[in-house]
Amino acid sequence: MVPHLTTALNGPLKELESRIIKAQPQIEHWFRSQWVDHAAPFYASVDLRNAGFKLAPVDTNLFPGGFNNLSGDFLPLAVQAATVAVEKACPDARGILLIPENHTRNTFYLQNVAAIHGILRQAGLNVRVGSLLPEITSATVLDLPNGKQLTLEPITRRGNRLFVGEEFNPCVVLLNNDLSGGIPDILKNIEQNLLPPPYAGWATRRKTRHFAAYDEVAQDFSELISIDPWLINPYFSHVGELDFQARQGEDVLADTVSDLLARIRVKYNEYGITHDPYVVVKADAGTYGMGVMTVKDAAEVKGLNRKQRNKMSVVKEGLEVNDVIIQEGVHTFETVNEAVAEPVVYMMDHFVVGGFYRVHTGRGVDENLNAPGMHFVPLAFEKPCNAPDCDGTPDCAPNRFYSYGVVARLALLAASRELEAMDEEFGDN
Amino acid sequence: MVPHLTTALNGPLKELESRIIKAQPQIEHWFRSQWVDHAAPFYASVDLRNAGFKLAPVDTNLFPGGFNNLSGDFLPLAVQAATVAVEKACPDARGILLIPENHTRNTFYLQNVAAIHGILRQAGLNVRVGSLLPEITSATVLDLPNGKQLTLEPITRRGNRLFVGEEFNPCVVLLNNDLSGGIPDILKNIEQNLLPPPYAGWATRRKTRHFAAYDEVAQDFSELISIDPWLINPYFSHVGELDFQARQGEDVLADTVSDLLARIRVKYNEYGITHDPYVVVKADAGTYGMGVMTVKDAAEVKGLNRKQRNKMSVVKEGLEVNDVIIQEGVHTFETVNEAVAEPVVYMMDHFVVGGFYRVHTGRGVDENLNAPGMHFVPLAFEKPCNAPDCDGTPDCAPNRFYSYGVVARLALLAASRELEAMDEEFGDN
Repeated sequence: MVPHLTTALNGPLKELESRIIKAQPQIEHWFRSQWVDHAAPFYASVDLRNAGFKLAPVDTNLFPGGFNNLSGDFLPLAVQAATVAVEKACPDARGILLIPENHTRNTFYLQNVAAIHGILRQAGLNVRVGSLLPEITSATVLDLPNGKQLTLEPITRRGNRLFVGEEFNPCVVLLNNDLSGGIPDILKNIEQNLLPPPYAGWATRRKTRHFAAYDEVAQDFSELISIDPWLINPYFSHVGELDFQARQGEDVLADTVSDLLARIRVKYNEYGITHDPYVVVKADAGTYGMGVMTVKDAAEVKGLNRKQRNKMSVVKEGLEVNDVIIQEGVHTFETVNEAVAEPVVYMMDHFVVGGFYRVHTGRGVDENLNAPGMHFVPLAFEKPCNAPDCDGTPDCAPNRFYSYGVVARLALLAASRELEAMDEEFGDN
Repeated sequence: MVPHLTTALNGPLKELESRIIKAQPQIEHWFRSQWVDHAAPFYASVDLRNAGFKLAPVDTNLFPGGFNNLSGDFLPLAVQAATVAVEKACPDARGILLIPENHTRNTFYLQNVAAIHGILRQAGLNVRVGSLLPEITSATVLDLPNGKQLTLEPITRRGNRLFVGEEFNPCVVLLNNDLSGGIPDILKNIEQNLLPPPYAGWATRRKTRHFAAYDEVAQDFSELISIDPWLINPYFSHVGELDFQARQGEDVLADTVSDLLARIRVKYNEYGITHDPYVVVKADAGTYGMGVMTVKDAAEVKGLNRKQRNKMSVVKEGLEVNDVIIQEGVHTFETVNEAVAEPVVYMMDHFVVGGFYRVHTGRGVDENLNAPGMHFVPLAFEKPCNAPDCDGTPDCAPNRFYSYGVVARLALLAASRELEAMDEEFGDN
């Protein structure tokens, strides 16, 4: 399956990709030194937007779903990377407890859990899937759309250790649950190595903190390869003390949107870009495309109707939204058979292990594709992102995927620095 | 391309493979702990023999050729593994100097050099190929059968550092030259990290030392999964003070061959194997299938004719043979379309990155396939060796390749221990 990819613009992005390919040895040298100083998260996925003139991350997920959408051809890469991740986290590990989200009815999500389970098992670990759901009181076998099955089991805590059944005493607890509802008591102060650390969950994590770390990474990287950091970095602002239901903070929000749109317009003029700038307003803590709004004019965020206010005021697990990130919208000009396509890149430890496109036919280039219940068609990358074609053109498939892998790793590095800073504030040690 | 693989026997090997697949978590756990204690060589290839009742390594190459025979589909695995190898050897490396064998006319070998060059370049290193040949006095472009080119350049030494041209000052020197003729002066006492260490060359390395280390590894592993170590380990003996031309030592050689054949017969009886046992007599230091003789009866090593004596008395670079390893012959019962097929497994750092079969139609099951000038057809493994099918039968392709990867990694671990012991004796530090 070879995706037919097009970008609407042939201007600066080709130049950016060309510069990335040309600087590949410097880039990899720089990454190697960064990973000596910073520990990569166990795994992550990064949503990218490719505007032709700009290639940037818009979201970094530390509890990635969608592993089931990667090409099976490259699973060995994930198995090898998982081996490295386990060697670093706990070389003596025999057993790993995987804790998923509580969506037992979302079979697409459950296939992701099964895919992670499979990778870890192929890497030679004993893996059990432990549910936080109180109704899982005994081993529960769930049928998956691909004909396979997934077994959820209850977790028990004895002292400060988690077990499954009487016997299974894991060395590592791997979270695939973003803890939007806070850190459950059963996970607090446990002896086992908990990955990612629980403060990476959305109860404490903030998008603005991540993108502040990304600002620094993008700045360093841009100096390395002599580019304008804006080409890989979306502008953003933070607005707090909001209460959408009480219409509190609307003016500040509108002014901030207006300022950000003005800053983007300056850049658009500088690069001769004639498209309309837009921003995306998102809950600063949260995921799953809830609490997200696309805005082209500051007036749009004033006088929201009830439906819009409801949409913005809460995210997953009923978490109330008082803080938002206003992020420069990056147009999606990459298409697959005329449908909008957004790349998502997957990493384990500091290795890119694959990716896929979210392909959607019914939406505009400036809309969010990851809305709740939103239907998209996953199209696995035909090439892994770690092996550029050093003799190919900058936009040939392996090199485009390599550029995606580079920008995704920049976001991963930002997440590393973000978690390091959070560890000082929230870590137990 | 799906190779059609058969094994002539369905007895104990299926049981061995089955036990390996079943014990996969214990095996990977054990390997993780081994790699904490032992540093893997930068790269290696291992020749295996699959006799149906027995699966064993017969040669471990620390300067592997044949990377060009691996499936291009799995090169990303090699790129990822090379990244790890470089991170360990020298995370700050920008440039790497690759020193190949002096076979400028062997275009198959040159394609191997180009393949290694490509993997390192894709991993983000600046790579130059420096020749030890005195006639390479300026950059020399060689055309390869696959339409690509390889540039050989002269190496210069300034003080204790190696350079290419005025500018290229590599951090790492990677040898793909087995130094059969001894360590050239230009490589002695250099500041740069020389990989593998020069004492891994055949001027100092001994097969018997490797297989003595393998004895220990095979013993430990066999206890781990409760098997008879003989199932993965060929018997061997050493005979020294030989002079084939002067017919000196023939009697000792014949007696040792006789003893070894008797030991093998005991095992054949124990397992009900009705095939004729045989041994392979090989130069203890050397490679390329020179100085190799297949023997079914001790009488064969007495009264060798001139041609046979010539064949045995010298190996590559005119190195005289005074020491031999007499190794239990492992029948090759694996066939591809009725042709004898011998698996070769490739590793970088401690990762299996692929493999291929040497397929040969014109030879018997007990003959050596790697003779000089010998024509074989390489058939790339259709699956990588690191991702077993945990739900598949023990002999399905991914699981057979996994078993190959396990036995190859045992030989790799033996090489690690062998080099550690040699470092005490030959290392500079």
